[in-house]
Amino acid sequence: MAKVLFKRLAIIGVGLIGSSIARAVRKAGLAETILLADPDSRVRERAAALSLGDEVFADSGEAAANADIVIVCAPVGVCGAIAAEVGPGLKPGAILSDVGSVKGAIIRAMAPHVPAHAHFVPAHPIAGTEDSGPDAGFAELFEGRWTILAPSPDADPAAVAKLRALWEGIGAKVDVMTPEHHDLVFAIVSHVPHLIAYNIVGTAADLEDVTQSEVIKYSASGFRDFTRIAASDPTMWRDIFLNNRDAVLQMLGRFVEDLTALQRAIRWGEGDKLFELFTRTRAIRRDIIEQGQDTAAPDFGRRSAAPAADHQ
Amino acid sequence: MAKVLFKRLAIIGVGLIGSSIARAVRKAGLAETILLADPDSRVRERAAALSLGDEVFADSGEAAANADIVIVCAPVGVCGAIAAEVGPGLKPGAILSDVGSVKGAIIRAMAPHVPAHAHFVPAHPIAGTEDSGPDAGFAELFEGRWTILAPSPDADPAAVAKLRALWEGIGAKVDVMTPEHHDLVFAIVSHVPHLIAYNIVGTAADLEDVTQSEVIKYSASGFRDFTRIAASDPTMWRDIFLNNRDAVLQMLGRFVEDLTALQRAIRWGEGDKLFELFTRTRAIRRDIIEQGQDTAAPDFGRRSAAPAADHQ
Repeated sequence: MAKVLFKRLAIIGVGLIGSSIARAVRKAGLAETILLADPDSRVRERAAALSLGDEVFADSGEAAANADIVIVCAPVGVCGAIAAEVGPGLKPGAILSDVGSVKGAIIRAMAPHVPAHAHFVPAHPIAGTEDSGPDAGFAELFEGRWTILAPSPDADPAAVAKLRALWEGIGAKVDVMTPEHHDLVFAIVSHVPHLIAYNIVGTAADLEDVTQSEVIKYSASGFRDFTRIAASDPTMWRDIFLNNRDAVLQMLGRFVEDLTALQRAIRWGEGDKLFELFTRTRAIRRDIIEQGQDTAAPDFGRRSAAPAADHQ
Repeated sequence: MAKVLFKRLAIIGVGLIGSSIARAVRKAGLAETILLADPDSRVRERAAALSLGDEVFADSGEAAANADIVIVCAPVGVCGAIAAEVGPGLKPGAILSDVGSVKGAIIRAMAPHVPAHAHFVPAHPIAGTEDSGPDAGFAELFEGRWTILAPSPDADPAAVAKLRALWEGIGAKVDVMTPEHHDLVFAIVSHVPHLIAYNIVGTAADLEDVTQSEVIKYSASGFRDFTRIAASDPTMWRDIFLNNRDAVLQMLGRFVEDLTALQRAIRWGEGDKLFELFTRTRAIRRDIIEQGQDTAAPDFGRRSAAPAADHQ
């Protein structure tokens, strides 16, 4: 059993991330008591049935009062409202954190509700799957993954260190960066990729010349990888785009500019320009494999999907 | 042992696809003799070392002469030149086929070189990985995958049936469609997805505000799925875009139009439009899983990539 870091840990929002933190913290023995809150009665029922915590509340303020750390695990768009609920009741020295994929907007929404006697340390675990809800979580979700902390320059170093210890205690690697830089980095590595995945899946669904059943039948030729990304939680992603607007529009502008150049190269038959880009992008894949951020197995090692296709 | 379909089968081009066909045909016992040809001496050496066929030729015309079926497994851009080499020597009743991802342009390039006494039946197996070369192939590559045949309306039905039997004999499911429809379908399910994957990986590499090492480090949040696609063979993909230009530009136009609408929705904070699309795209993913075209395991079941990341 690891050293207990917090007597009472509260998780507000028991979805994929919240339930995974609860499972991981319990497994690692990092908190004596785990308090859960969720506004959805079905989620609370599942949380109780799965024994994800010691107590389950409908009211987030109730769960947070007397907790030593409160982690808000909710869509970006409601984090401000939750901070307004839990902020006033935070006890002296308590840490308030979150897991949002956007940092600037969340800080603007949450920070005003944090009393001077508590510590606000925003965080973003780079982990998840395309599934949602308390049943989708698992204790190993954060193992070997990065979690970014984005504290303000005047944040209490002891509080930052304690939050870092929590994330490291459940297997994450921790980095610290400014909220502004975080939002730019994730606009390009996450938000724009999701947007274009959603977009192409939508485009394909709307065609007249190609049927939706053809799109599904032949999806193995590239399209299906986009559909996995485009199956991510709609509420979470709507909120991300609305709340990281400037960085997303900036990166999207670059993407479209580059795409227009490729389009022109195709129209004018400039094969050398295409070849040069296609060669360059291969090297980046190699670096990702070498740094252990993905598996080198062909087709993500999912050759096993083929036999299932036999039975269709 | 299955019934022998062809006495002498020639494969021109021993890369991922050609070597996989050779392995699969041998495993299934569908040809008495397998003849291989490749212009690259290193590929010929590997083909011989791996015992992929019975004879290995530098000259494609030599391999094709006296073969009962000749399958050209080369980048789209050289299929016409190969047809010019093998066409004149084809024996009466021989079948000439290919595996190109584009059909209209290949037919225009190859058909003129096919003598009246032979049969040209274009084909496209929807299978592959991001790896290339004779070592990357494996006998099971086509199992449970689709292969499209795109014969002209006046093609010999017996020749089409025989090619179908070959593909079915190595585990593929076979569909028949016109070359024009094929090129439209694959523009949207394969070519445009590859183009936008190549493009975003290129955009990310060129940024000034975000370093390439950050892009690689945090790629698990969406970007890395694109890098796998963008690691595909540069020559093959250059040729696909140059040879399926019209369909690609048509589908790309639709994609950009839709993306512009999304961009505008983000700029004006129209969350309902985003939410509506993101909900609709989820259903398509469900259909793909149900039809056995992908695995439902979260993250493509590659959770195993995480431990490796610990060691970086």
